[in-house]
Amino acid sequence: MAKQKKAPRPKAITPKGFRDYFGADVVERNAMLATIAETYRLHGFEPLETSAVETVEALGKFLPDVDRPNEGVFAWEDDDAGWVALRYDLTAPLARVAAQYRNDLPSPYRRYAMGPVWRNEKPGPGRFRQFYQCDADTVGAPSVAADAEICGMLASTLEAVGIPRGDYIVRINNRKVLNGVMEVAGVLNPDDPTQFEAERGIVLRAIDKLDRLGPDGVRALLGAGREDASGDFTEGAGLSADQAETVMAFMSARGDNAGQTVANLRALVGPSATGSTGVDELDQIGTLLAAQGVGEDRAVLDPSVVRGLGYYTGPVFEAELTFEIMDEKGRPRQFGSVSGGGRYDDLVKRFTGQQVPATGISIGVDRLLAALRAKGRLEQAAPGPVIVTVMDRDRMADYQRMAAELRAAGMRAEVYLGNPKNFGNQLKYADKRQSPVAVIQGADEAAAGKVQIKDLVLGAQIAASASLEEWKSQPAQQEVDLADLVPAVRAILARTGG
Amino acid sequence: MAKQKKAPRPKAITPKGFRDYFGADVVERNAMLATIAETYRLHGFEPLETSAVETVEALGKFLPDVDRPNEGVFAWEDDDAGWVALRYDLTAPLARVAAQYRNDLPSPYRRYAMGPVWRNEKPGPGRFRQFYQCDADTVGAPSVAADAEICGMLASTLEAVGIPRGDYIVRINNRKVLNGVMEVAGVLNPDDPTQFEAERGIVLRAIDKLDRLGPDGVRALLGAGREDASGDFTEGAGLSADQAETVMAFMSARGDNAGQTVANLRALVGPSATGSTGVDELDQIGTLLAAQGVGEDRAVLDPSVVRGLGYYTGPVFEAELTFEIMDEKGRPRQFGSVSGGGRYDDLVKRFTGQQVPATGISIGVDRLLAALRAKGRLEQAAPGPVIVTVMDRDRMADYQRMAAELRAAGMRAEVYLGNPKNFGNQLKYADKRQSPVAVIQGADEAAAGKVQIKDLVLGAQIAASASLEEWKSQPAQQEVDLADLVPAVRAILARTGG
Repeated sequence: MAKQKKAPRPKAITPKGFRDYFGADVVERNAMLATIAETYRLHGFEPLETSAVETVEALGKFLPDVDRPNEGVFAWEDDDAGWVALRYDLTAPLARVAAQYRNDLPSPYRRYAMGPVWRNEKPGPGRFRQFYQCDADTVGAPSVAADAEICGMLASTLEAVGIPRGDYIVRINNRKVLNGVMEVAGVLNPDDPTQFEAERGIVLRAIDKLDRLGPDGVRALLGAGREDASGDFTEGAGLSADQAETVMAFMSARGDNAGQTVANLRALVGPSATGSTGVDELDQIGTLLAAQGVGEDRAVLDPSVVRGLGYYTGPVFEAELTFEIMDEKGRPRQFGSVSGGGRYDDLVKRFTGQQVPATGISIGVDRLLAALRAKGRLEQAAPGPVIVTVMDRDRMADYQRMAAELRAAGMRAEVYLGNPKNFGNQLKYADKRQSPVAVIQGADEAAAGKVQIKDLVLGAQIAASASLEEWKSQPAQQEVDLADLVPAVRAILARTGG
Repeated sequence: MAKQKKAPRPKAITPKGFRDYFGADVVERNAMLATIAETYRLHGFEPLETSAVETVEALGKFLPDVDRPNEGVFAWEDDDAGWVALRYDLTAPLARVAAQYRNDLPSPYRRYAMGPVWRNEKPGPGRFRQFYQCDADTVGAPSVAADAEICGMLASTLEAVGIPRGDYIVRINNRKVLNGVMEVAGVLNPDDPTQFEAERGIVLRAIDKLDRLGPDGVRALLGAGREDASGDFTEGAGLSADQAETVMAFMSARGDNAGQTVANLRALVGPSATGSTGVDELDQIGTLLAAQGVGEDRAVLDPSVVRGLGYYTGPVFEAELTFEIMDEKGRPRQFGSVSGGGRYDDLVKRFTGQQVPATGISIGVDRLLAALRAKGRLEQAAPGPVIVTVMDRDRMADYQRMAAELRAAGMRAEVYLGNPKNFGNQLKYADKRQSPVAVIQGADEAAAGKVQIKDLVLGAQIAASASLEEWKSQPAQQEVDLADLVPAVRAILARTGG
């Protein structure tokens, strides 16, 4: 007789590249998102919550050549909706919404969005395939007043979540200034923007590598090319030494104040109309920020900000935390960027053919939380609840009554609901719950209308260091009248920060 | 020459069955979720946030016969993780987590989870394929103290979100009592639980139809069977009239108070051991709720609650809103259920082979919001921001300064960022933003250090009803010193509820 094959038990694991968040991590992130939302709302931004699922077509991730979605997204074919995918950012859904509801939304439309996005990338250590984004964008506002507002809001937001003034800086640059510099350097012809496209691509990539290669490496890439340590050769943009110096000068054009920076840039872009517009815009942004009360200790014009210059069409922004933390090897290093953004002008063009200006930022909430944690600036994780222990299984109603009284007074409280036989297990449970207080009432105390209250924080300190005499005197445990349960527990919580 | 075919523009639409949420809807839901989370935390529950994506195996949705996932989930095959799917509820991920981290989690483990879930079902009007769930469960607590705690917490939660006492009721029943009744009715043999399985299935389905078919219809299904209006015949369980009356008596066993209900049920289950245990459990739950201060005006033992009896293994709960609303046809009807739950004892057995008791509830957040909206009990949707209009494009810095001042004083404020040429458009925009106040400063006012403040709420009232004289006197608009901007706007907001 054939033995029936038993199905193996399923494995209790998260899929590769995904993770779970427990307790304080969830509470802290939700608190931060709520604070950010409040700041955004104060600036007139409204929330938008789209679904996780979009059509692959709307996401712009359909590859018509192979009739399949781009591999970077999680996609599947649906009977009712065709090829659909999980959103990979919050900008693509905004573009879809701005096009779909263009007749109903206010214009300009200021919106914020917060939530998970998904990337179909190889998972690796610390690289997750689902993570949070937190964006704010203004759609339909062509003037740099919108950019200045976003930069000021970014500074306010960082302060609202707990980064004090001086520990962050918002840096602002402008793609148009770079284009002006390109004109001066002879790699952009305003009358024929298609000319020198390859050279400009090389220039952009070279600029982007300043951090890694240093000025000499970038200079080589701007010129004839660069051979790396392994002997690999990267072709350069073919600029002369003078032309290359113009580009290099752009990146180091920051002066002691906004006025100087603007003057330096104005000299650099010379006769270029695009460049002049770009410098004017930076100048206006500086003026508008000052009017909003955002000084240069919070937001500066800084031409060395090059990240994303290729993607954006005007002003670009980046927020950096300027304090040092220790890296894995114990070396101090700057914490770095927690937010970036800028102006991009073809948000909905793909859908409607119309050009609609937009500008926005994205805040890396998880990095920001990590920074606050690294600096010990997150509010001490709230302690666990008060644990009402169970000495007598038949008096569960009494214990529930005590827990209800504590809750009614605003204190987190729970009755131990495991098997109460072994009291040591109850205290181990309280320890695992990081409970500050245990409430104990046996038959004797109940008869006398009393209750024992154990200060678990003090108890742990004593257990670690007390002499036998101290230990025996049990200073961490006190007996009070049952009627005094609430004030007695409150007094301990006030002392231990609960 | 062949003309190059232009790719058609993508359609800006949500996939079928998905939707977007804007502004107040997002704010209201987030506020409700935050309130629920606070109440859950007060009871010692900790948040858990799992990913949207789980292995199909862990979800228990893999169909080995066809080597494909169940069609009810959105699933795809991943290079790194195999078949994965979007979670369809929050219980399956809890089961995976309870098994995966069983050595690290406190036991009992009280957790709450809030977030979207996805169902691969045919979309239809009002039927969405992504919606919110909001669950609280206690894992590893076998005693009914855990059930009583959950029921009390459910009542507190409903009050916390704005359902006053008297407008809701938590009803509690117990699957074990029904099993006892089945024994008495002769369709459950405790010595051979496999006997009469078909009959019990019919009885359960019949009970479930009480609302729709009425007592006579259910009686017919318990007996020989029932022919519906179209002539279709549904076979019955074949119970005798006496047996059927026993089952019917179960559903109407509720007495004037918990004591009477318990007595009625005890008489019904007679000698059945399972039935007696079930009645004892209900009795204890009633006692424990009373101890927590939850009276019968908030939670009652009610054997007519039959929903989900088939799935659960012990106590079951349901929260109903008891007030009437008007349905689509203008007829009054009870709002009905907003939450359900109960005890289920094989949460992690699939993974570990171990039986782990669990009990929990799920709150339908969207239904609860709809109820509050229907009763006008949601806080008046916050008005839009103050709009600082732009009379003079060159003085944008002044307008930004005013907005910044208003924000610094805690008021939502924004500068109009569209094309300022047409002032009417600015007021239309303010209207669309539901703005309570417009701030106006032209060159004359600026020179005099003044600013105009327009009360848009009052302005709209006047526009609707004023005489020409009233209209001309412009009572909705006042000129104040620029230095008094903040107090003057605050006074209007205080009057209009902003």
